[in-house]
Order: sequence, then structure tokens, then C-alpha cells
Amino acid sequence: MDQIKLIAFDADDTLWINEYHYRNAELRFCEKMKKYISEDEANELLLKREKMNLPLLGYGSKPFIISLVETGIEISKGTISNYEILELIEIGKDTIGKPIELMPEVENILSTLSSRYPLILATKGDLKEQESKIERSGLEKYFSAIEILSEKNRDSYSRIVKKHSVNPENFLMVGNSFKSDILPVLEIGGNAIYIPSEIIWAHEVAEEIEHPRLKKAGRLSINLFEQ
Amino acid sequence: MDQIKLIAFDADDTLWINEYHYRNAELRFCEKMKKYISEDEANELLLKREKMNLPLLGYGSKPFIISLVETGIEISKGTISNYEILELIEIGKDTIGKPIELMPEVENILSTLSSRYPLILATKGDLKEQESKIERSGLEKYFSAIEILSEKNRDSYSRIVKKHSVNPENFLMVGNSFKSDILPVLEIGGNAIYIPSEIIWAHEVAEEIEHPRLKKAGRLSINLFEQ
Repeated sequence: MDQIKLIAFDADDTLWINEYHYRNAELRFCEKMKKYISEDEANELLLKREKMNLPLLGYGSKPFIISLVETGIEISKGTISNYEILELIEIGKDTIGKPIELMPEVENILSTLSSRYPLILATKGDLKEQESKIERSGLEKYFSAIEILSEKNRDSYSRIVKKHSVNPENFLMVGNSFKSDILPVLEIGGNAIYIPSEIIWAHEVAEEIEHPRLKKAGRLSINLFEQ
Repeated sequence: MDQIKLIAFDADDTLWINEYHYRNAELRFCEKMKKYISEDEANELLLKREKMNLPLLGYGSKPFIISLVETGIEISKGTISNYEILELIEIGKDTIGKPIELMPEVENILSTLSSRYPLILATKGDLKEQESKIERSGLEKYFSAIEILSEKNRDSYSRIVKKHSVNPENFLMVGNSFKSDILPVLEIGGNAIYIPSEIIWAHEVAEEIEHPRLKKAGRLSINLFEQ
């Protein structure tokens, strides 16, 4: 950790629980679709629709709501009732504004680290939803800057290290998505701590590699930052 | 202009046409609702729904799409067909990714001003949609920073002037919404140039005041920045 001068944390499913709420919403959706097709097939069609909508609509609850409606119409072959469509919209809206449940140890770790390093939050997704979660988390005080990105790739991480005037080798990113938090950071020459989450959105799944500048752990702990 | 050290421009309907696309979508929606109620009533119910959704869903095309579906179901008393719901979703999606039409003189004005002042873009709305519009506008090169905000109020403008190390009296904001671009800037002690647009979203309408640090003009011109 000697060469580290800036640490960035991912937010959803690194600092607090998020994907669980979406998984729950997907289960409720599939349950409603059971009268048409199997739950697995319904889930597959929903994921496919989300992937189709991603380039135009981006991340977060709102594209999810739109995908629920479109997939419900698709699966029911255009026969789903207006009442049920409103129910699908509600399932999607329910993913917004959930109470923030911090991951274990998060507050201690941020409190300790923030006295030693500048910390930033680097999260991807919907601006309004992410701002609301950061505010409700009570963790804002530990971060010197908050970067809400529309994509996490080599370009966006290069911009972050440049903006904060550090070299990639002095930058450490901590996150749960190999594709968004880890791989692009290693590729630009940075360091990463990877804490895989138990559940991950299908579109974030990526092949994992081993790397000398990468640590992997089952959960966040201060020891990871002390060696 | 002697005391100005930082100029911020609003984007939608200040630098390029935006609201026109939404107005067009509203007209298409009301046309489809004509078999149930008058176009004025349909428009009123849509605006009411958008206002209801604003705190949870925020700004941009995606909340608009969701509001179209909900209002269509409401107006049809739950009888609108699945096919028509997909049409409403398409009407909403059509507002995304339209070619960027710059307002007259914009490129000249930014080019001239950017050699004299640091310029920033201060826009409200959906992160992904705003980033895409900025990129497609070709105007990014004139701005030293881009601030995409979830709300434009006194707090967010105070953060901007602080972040860019100027005092409010050295800050000038240029925009088309009295409520979002002008009033909060005057309230924190800043300067403003107000270019009302011909059409404005009903939720952005605010009572206008006169103020010694405010200029109002029918269109953008370099003269506004030279006195």
C-alpha cells in the first residue's frame, strides 16, 4: 500500500446492498409471468430486454421499469391487463428508495482509511438514484469527491486519475464487479481490491483474471489495506 | 462584465433545441388519447402524472416514458391495448437521441467567450442523456468543466462556485429557465443572463422578477457579454 495515494470505492454492492432488491423484483415479475411461461424463461426474456434497452436507456430503476412492461407484454403475447401492467410498474418503482443497508465493517473501514488517504466514491448509474443513496447512506463525509459515471471503462478511470492528479500506479479501486470496477483499472495500470458479491447482475458478469496488482477477498476488511 | 470570472451555460433549450421534441411527443400522445378525452385534458393529466413522478423518478426521457404509460392506462380507464401501450413507449423513446440542433450563434459565442473566460456547462437531468447530447453537440471543447446536476437550486450553484474557487459576484449563469437557471443564481449573489425560450416545460414555469444583476434578451448574442 506504500505507493497508494488515492482510493476509490464502488458503491452499489460494495458499500451497501443493492442487487438484492433487483433480484427480489425479478422474482416478483417471474411469479406474475408463471401463468404464461416458466420462471426461468421469464427471467431470461427480461434480461434480454434489459440488454437491448441498455444502449438507449442506461442503468438504474427507470430502464428496469420500462423493460418489465415491455417483457410482460411480450410474454403474455399482448394480453396482459392494464391492471397487471401497473403492478409491473410498481414492482420496478419499489426498487427505488429502499432503506440503505451497509455492508459489514464499511463505516469503520472508511473512517480509518479517510484519515490516511483521500477517498473518492466512483459509482455508475442513474444520477438522481445514486445521489439519493449516497445521502441516505450517511457515508458522504468520508469522501473528498463523488464521481457518478454513466460507464466505468478505461476512459472514465483515466479521467478520474487525471482529475485527481495521481498516476495510475498510485490509484486503488475497490469494488464488486470484475467487469466495471477491476478489469479497466488493472488495464490502465492501477491497483484493485475485488470483493465479489454473492449476487451480481447478469450484465456485469465477466471472466476473472489473476494479476499482481489485484487482491481478492470474501469481504471488506481493514487488513486488505494494510499489507 | 468586469467582475465576471466564470460563465456557466445551461444546455437544453439554451444551447440546443430540446423541449420541442417533448412537445411533439405530447402532441402525439394527446392525438392517441382523442378517442377517450379532449387533447387539452389528456395533456393536463400527463403533466399531473409527470409532476407526481418527479420526486421518485427525476427528469428526462425515462420518467416521461413511464408517465405516458401510466396516463394512457388512466385515461382509457384500463382499456388501452398492449399494442397501444408499446406505441406510447415508442413515442417516449423517440425523444432520446434526436439530432442536436444548435441555437443560432451558439458556436460563435462560445468560441469567442472561451478565449476570455473559463466556461462551464451546468445542466440538469439524466446523466446518460446529457452526456450523449454534449458529445453529439460538438461543443465540449469550449468548456473547462461539465456539471450534470440532479437539481438546480441555491445549494447546487453554491457548490459550483465553491468548486471553481470564485465568489458568487464573479459568477454568471446563462439559461432559459427562470426557475432553474436564473432565480437561484441571483439569490446566492450571482449574475444571470435570461434567454426565455418559446416553449418551456410546465414544471419549469416560475414568476419572473427584475434584478440589477440580471439581463434578459430575446436570443443569445455576443453583445450581451460585452457590456
